[in-house]
Amino acid sequence: MNSIEVKDISKTFGDVCALDHVTINFEQNKIYGLLGRNGAGKSTLLNILTNRIFPDSGQVLINGISTTNNDTALGSMYLMSEKTYYPEKMKIKDAYKWTKIFYPDFDETYAKKIAQMFKLNIKKPITSLSTGYTSIFKITIALSVNTPFILLDEPVLGLDANHRDLFYKLLIEKFSDHPCTIVISTHLIEEVSQVIEDIVIIQDGKIIRNESCEALLSKGYTVSGSKTIVDTYIQYKNVIGYDSLGGLKTAYILGEINKSTLPDGVETTKLDLQRLFIQLTNELGDDRNEFESSL
Amino acid sequence: MNSIEVKDISKTFGDVCALDHVTINFEQNKIYGLLGRNGAGKSTLLNILTNRIFPDSGQVLINGISTTNNDTALGSMYLMSEKTYYPEKMKIKDAYKWTKIFYPDFDETYAKKIAQMFKLNIKKPITSLSTGYTSIFKITIALSVNTPFILLDEPVLGLDANHRDLFYKLLIEKFSDHPCTIVISTHLIEEVSQVIEDIVIIQDGKIIRNESCEALLSKGYTVSGSKTIVDTYIQYKNVIGYDSLGGLKTAYILGEINKSTLPDGVETTKLDLQRLFIQLTNELGDDRNEFESSL
Repeated sequence: MNSIEVKDISKTFGDVCALDHVTINFEQNKIYGLLGRNGAGKSTLLNILTNRIFPDSGQVLINGISTTNNDTALGSMYLMSEKTYYPEKMKIKDAYKWTKIFYPDFDETYAKKIAQMFKLNIKKPITSLSTGYTSIFKITIALSVNTPFILLDEPVLGLDANHRDLFYKLLIEKFSDHPCTIVISTHLIEEVSQVIEDIVIIQDGKIIRNESCEALLSKGYTVSGSKTIVDTYIQYKNVIGYDSLGGLKTAYILGEINKSTLPDGVETTKLDLQRLFIQLTNELGDDRNEFESSL
Repeated sequence: MNSIEVKDISKTFGDVCALDHVTINFEQNKIYGLLGRNGAGKSTLLNILTNRIFPDSGQVLINGISTTNNDTALGSMYLMSEKTYYPEKMKIKDAYKWTKIFYPDFDETYAKKIAQMFKLNIKKPITSLSTGYTSIFKITIALSVNTPFILLDEPVLGLDANHRDLFYKLLIEKFSDHPCTIVISTHLIEEVSQVIEDIVIIQDGKIIRNESCEALLSKGYTVSGSKTIVDTYIQYKNVIGYDSLGGLKTAYILGEINKSTLPDGVETTKLDLQRLFIQLTNELGDDRNEFESSL
């Protein structure tokens, strides 16, 4: 089975415990969302998976075999990371040739085709690109390497909305044509919720959620209506925030909804993934709790 | 009146016309969203407003007086831009002291207070910060300078969802407590639609939309239902994309909705700002049009 097994991985940087006994499987041919706050440990995990940094303890197995000193296993994964390791002044088209040496299944023709869709000029040096176009350059490679595992760390950083839209479409196309395991780490949670199947939430170096997007989304809902009615309804509910506008109120609630107990005159919708994530990862005693979750 | 008047500004870089006869007013005490594709001219406009770069022709007036060689006018604007101009190795807390010299109304106590909310360690050198925390550092200054005009270029780049949430809340708080004119340039359109009043869309150096968020949002809608019914309904409509799932279809339509002509069994919602933006700024003959707008 083509899976990545992460077994009891821990990693400390100085005083900071970046990963704390992390165990997780990334199964074959699934798209995962790896979500977490800034500094939660997402990038550390992705870098350990691909042997760019080494864990203090624990191991990573690909198809049951440890990735340590295992070029075959490592060659089956591609990590699009924040850092790029191309020589200064290298042009994009030359980076494509260079990639082909390390990833024999890299499809240069396809990379050039999607570069054109994004209007990326492949004659430019990589270092001359803006934040958005640096991401696009990395996307053109990640979507063309054709490895069984593709790991994407903040793939849409700096991209405009149209380009993000195009990226999500190309990703789904790629996944349909060449099924593979994709792990996307991103802060644009609401957008990515439309392309991912499973969600892994990491918080302070620990996995706090690992379930299907659908299952997680079923755990939160909103209730809207006149303030008095909503206030009465939510009295004994786990309310995580609200919006008010004139006499109207929307409350965000964690838990399973029981539609039969809903009073007349209120409307209910699912809680979106981003708001759910924000609540699940807010820290106890966090200063920001003095604000309403009103947006 | 405290307004920024941009009069017939043009700017060319080499072969590229970055701004093409741009005329626009930013009125007192409003929050504007300055939206555009990568490379549309947003940053050039913001840099010209603050005299960091000079236009080839046209002028910028603040309260009716040209900003050229006018330190008072320039001191009334603060631009949070992609580039930071602080000396290498300068610590955040020293940057706060430095800011106070140039912006006498800068509230250092408040900057430190919100730094703590974001868990920004102000003893760190600015250059040691991650992408997200570099944005947070700049946010703490922008929300504390207390100038009549605050211009924010990609303020939430790299921020996690919780921090973006906190930023939007603090921005609204600031605006309520000290009304001012705020211009936000961002690619996270759906999120910002909740805090902005007016929208300015720039495309290829030209202003293509300048109207209230509400007015713009009233111009698009979606229709969902069984494929056959939706297909019949949209026959003579300006359809900009659709989603299909089994026998169901959602069509995205530009134009005013006439609810009386809606057939039974279809549901309609407003088109969100991001999808509307994507369609308005897609270029004719753009390669990406070969894809459905399906996300």
